[in-house]
Amino acid sequence: MYVIMAYDVNVERVVKVLHTGRRYLTWVQNSVLEGELTPALFERLKADIAKIIDPNQDAVRFYVIKRTACFEKEFLGHSKNEPGQIL
Amino acid sequence: MYVIMAYDVNVERVVKVLHTGRRYLTWVQNSVLEGELTPALFERLKADIAKIIDPNQDAVRFYVIKRTACFEKEFLGHSKNEPGQIL
Repeated sequence: MYVIMAYDVNVERVVKVLHTGRRYLTWVQNSVLEGELTPALFERLKADIAKIIDPNQDAVRFYVIKRTACFEKEFLGHSKNEPGQIL
Repeated sequence: MYVIMAYDVNVERVVKVLHTGRRYLTWVQNSVLEGELTPALFERLKADIAKIIDPNQDAVRFYVIKRTACFEKEFLGHSKNEPGQIL
């Protein structure tokens, strides 16, 4: 399944959330990571993120797309990174 | 179709991109809007955003999901807004 993770977290926790997210997904632009995950890895990602954030202040959204044929990506401007590119 | 818009733009253009995006989609958290759009409205959204951004500095991603049955949303923490909620 394809997972898009978008986070809106307090500045004190941004680096930790990003580092944790990048263990599972590819950073593509400010506050957004994406990539293929197994259900098991997705559960571990959520558990790891849940340990870091303050649920009263921070918001993390996951869009879980069952099949990549179900969606398309379009860009305007300068695409900062893509899954598969090595930063 | 369901459209998720994530923007990573220069601070000078953030307000304009957000205001333009909110004419078509719902702001859900920092740098992310989403909602149902017809293909025609999606084309107009992209044209309006393209007029505002600097393609060399700014990045705007659109995830276009053909059928809402294709995906699920999950949240950690505090969901800041949802399509249908009036801010």
